[in-house]
Amino acid sequence: MISEIKVFAPASVANVSCGFDVLGFCLDPIGDLIHVKMIEKPGVHIGNIKGYKVPKNPLKNVASVAVSALLKSHPTKNGFIINIEKKIKPGSGIGSSAASSAGAVFAVNELLGRPFKSDKLLDFAMFGEALASGEYHADNLAPVIFGGFTLVRSINPIDIVSLPYPPELIVTIIHPKIELKTIHSRAILKDDIPLKKAIKQWGNLGALISALHTNNYNLLSRSLQDELIEPARSILIPKFEEVKNEALNQGALGSGISGSGPSIFALSKGMATAKKAGNAMAEIYKSIGLEYDMYLSPINKVGIKILK
Amino acid sequence: MISEIKVFAPASVANVSCGFDVLGFCLDPIGDLIHVKMIEKPGVHIGNIKGYKVPKNPLKNVASVAVSALLKSHPTKNGFIINIEKKIKPGSGIGSSAASSAGAVFAVNELLGRPFKSDKLLDFAMFGEALASGEYHADNLAPVIFGGFTLVRSINPIDIVSLPYPPELIVTIIHPKIELKTIHSRAILKDDIPLKKAIKQWGNLGALISALHTNNYNLLSRSLQDELIEPARSILIPKFEEVKNEALNQGALGSGISGSGPSIFALSKGMATAKKAGNAMAEIYKSIGLEYDMYLSPINKVGIKILK
Repeated sequence: MISEIKVFAPASVANVSCGFDVLGFCLDPIGDLIHVKMIEKPGVHIGNIKGYKVPKNPLKNVASVAVSALLKSHPTKNGFIINIEKKIKPGSGIGSSAASSAGAVFAVNELLGRPFKSDKLLDFAMFGEALASGEYHADNLAPVIFGGFTLVRSINPIDIVSLPYPPELIVTIIHPKIELKTIHSRAILKDDIPLKKAIKQWGNLGALISALHTNNYNLLSRSLQDELIEPARSILIPKFEEVKNEALNQGALGSGISGSGPSIFALSKGMATAKKAGNAMAEIYKSIGLEYDMYLSPINKVGIKILK
Repeated sequence: MISEIKVFAPASVANVSCGFDVLGFCLDPIGDLIHVKMIEKPGVHIGNIKGYKVPKNPLKNVASVAVSALLKSHPTKNGFIINIEKKIKPGSGIGSSAASSAGAVFAVNELLGRPFKSDKLLDFAMFGEALASGEYHADNLAPVIFGGFTLVRSINPIDIVSLPYPPELIVTIIHPKIELKTIHSRAILKDDIPLKKAIKQWGNLGALISALHTNNYNLLSRSLQDELIEPARSILIPKFEEVKNEALNQGALGSGISGSGPSIFALSKGMATAKKAGNAMAEIYKSIGLEYDMYLSPINKVGIKILK
């Protein structure tokens, strides 16, 4: 073994109501731990897997697929063993595949002496996302790699805009324990959409971006709307409308599907409101006996962190 | 006659590449002059018309239709005579109907002692826009009424976001002298659009809004893209691609169709580049013997102005 590195690759929320496939922000309290060892013999291997189950076959694991994409652009005589402590449940809607893909390419890039910049790492990590969902997309990867709140202007070429956000913004996540594969949530969407609804969507997105730049909580709240994707996807999520309405009733600024679901996010001004929203959301799932996880978190400014 | 008022109602650029139906900014050097007299006998009349021809019939003139909408919400025993010096050619793509509609309701609101706020004036002026184009839209009206660069988050209810913009932004407008009715430019658009193109459009729009907030000229330039509306509409505009490319070749940040055309706008950093772009754009029309008008203008911060 030549050297090794361990990173924390956080969960993230993509789409954020009106920003389908372009908006995302990074979470704090939960993430995968990716431990990569560089070895002398070439090849990319999955080593130990702890926590949630993911494929051991390097052709089917998002982390190794993303690393292999990196190594195609940077051939080396060395090999890599990727150990994964999988703490984000696959199919939970908070960027499970993005965390492992981004964490692995980030770690390997460090071990190789940083031949690539962040934009390029995103390019490689997208191969992991494509394996998981059938589509190249960067709305979860960008906040994991850059931290904070991000907009993907373009994926070809990669063009990421880091957005400011109001300091008191707190995220509530509730994850009802059903599994929803991104690939299925994508299949439910139509290839064509009504122009009139698209206009509403980009009106809201534009207003949301402006609200983030000006700390305008009222405008942010008015803009967190999605008449396009949410109506189609929410039918896959138990009690979605009730959970969302409870969050809003408790004073959350907005609420919607996290990524492709089933997790639901709420954004609130301040921890007290975020907690109240979370408790009310949880009551809905308690009342029907559905297990859930809940997270409360400020937006994570940093993204991936090196642990050792 | 009880009282009278004269206002300057400026031209405007709507859509602005990626912001179909939501973005717009206000121009300086050209606008309609609207002179309204309040009389004792009720009714809304079109008085003198100078300049470009518009209907004398108050049911067919956008200014009187907009004023009638206002009076429905604010009944009065008085009547109004609207005199119009029509300096913006109808069908030129720089908000001709918006200027007359907004100017007239603004003037009448002043004569009545300002019973309505700007948001509400926009609601009334939209009746003029609907008469001209067959659709209620506020992307030209908002910059005329509020000034500057605006985003229409919603028209029902009205929700307008005033956007900042870099101080050195200069607009070049070239208007090839063919007439294009908004109603025809709308008919060429399909009711449904591909989701993939919509995602690109709102990625660009979000990035453009961020660029306006941060004076980021490079990002602004990368975001001024439209793969959705421009390809369909540009076939109605002679030599569109050549004119646009000339503007970009001379260093303009971006160029596209102004409103529904046939006018073409370019945005540049500084007057020198805006002039160079304008000259190069004009050469294309000179070479085919097509008459044109050209305007150079900073963005007009104020919008409608009272003249006396």
